[in-house]
Amino acid sequence: MNGYMANKEDLLARLKRAEGQVRGIARMVDEDKYCIDILTQVSAATRALETVALSLLADHLSHCVAEAAAEGGPVAAEKVREANDAIARLVRS
Amino acid sequence: MNGYMANKEDLLARLKRAEGQVRGIARMVDEDKYCIDILTQVSAATRALETVALSLLADHLSHCVAEAAAEGGPVAAEKVREANDAIARLVRS
Amino acid sequence: MNGYMANKEDLLARLKRAEGQVRGIARMVDEDKYCIDILTQVSAATRALETVALSLLADHLSHCVAEAAAEGGPVAAEKVREANDAIARLVRS
Amino acid sequence: MNGYMANKEDLLARLKRAEGQVRGIARMVDEDKYCIDILTQVSAATRALETVALSLLADHLSHCVAEAAAEGGPVAAEKVREANDAIARLVRS
Repeated sequence: MNGYMANKEDLLARLKRAEGQVRGIARMVDEDKYCIDILTQVSAATRALETVALSLLADHLSHCVAEAAAEGGPVAAEKVREANDAIARLVRS
Repeated sequence: MNGYMANKEDLLARLKRAEGQVRGIARMVDEDKYCIDILTQVSAATRALETVALSLLADHLSHCVAEAAAEGGPVAAEKVREANDAIARLVRS
Repeated sequence: MNGYMANKEDLLARLKRAEGQVRGIARMVDEDKYCIDILTQVSAATRALETVALSLLADHLSHCVAEAAAEGGPVAAEKVREANDAIARLVRS
Repeated sequence: MNGYMANKEDLLARLKRAEGQVRGIARMVDEDKYCIDILTQVSAATRALETVALSLLADHLSHCVAEAAAEGGPVAAEKVREANDAIARLVRS
């Protein structure tokens, strides 16, 4: 069971919108729109993906990591390590 | 004339790939893939969009802003102000 | 007991260095150094603070959050929520 | 002449405050304060440095880069390339 199960429809709707945003950016480039207006849309799409990532991570900590921690042992330590690596990738991207 | 004209094909190819990445993330959510693996793909898509933004911005400074600066006057000042706002949005997103 | 106890000396050493970096940046501004060289040092100091944050957060998840999760109940849920908020602030800063 | 000359006092005041923030974070670690409260201060210090960077960059584009662009030639191209590299470092840090 994945932590994001309860938010699956919401996540899929957000990703659908983000996909549409990226396609819209390509259309703007294709139609030679003004650079600054394209950049505004790229910032919006980046923020949309960031929101998806934070939502996935919050669900992951609340469920998978919390449950593993409740059981303890090496699996718990590994889940925490894995979550920390994902957070570092996110902060640095 | 937009600054990114010379890189248009490259930009469109990158955006096509980024769109495919976002669609791939939605598929992973739909197929209940593991949260951490999905997060890795979200970080990759975010970085891909960031590269598009930096490329657009570099072309914009090299062409539009540099040309306006060469002419001087209020248009030049406005172009620089506009670029600075876009950079701030990018750094903060 | 805070999660970072075992890394306290390392954290203090990193923060001492970061403080020195920020003081160095002020000195560069005061001595009218070249903007781009100052910006390079600001990026380095920002990255140093980011590393401190990721280290604090990793220790927090490994200790405080994992221990609260092992006990369960409303305190556990609150610790996870609090960690998620801190991660969101970090990703967006 | 550096672009930030007119803002020098403001930049030095901001850097002084950022230095104090980093010293305050070290004090919190030393006094075993709660991880999440320390993280809030690290995010604030990171944002303060980001504001310094955006201010330096804006002044640099408005002055050094705009003046070089007005003169044209290889120096102008080099200034723009250098600014683009600094922006990329900032966006990725």
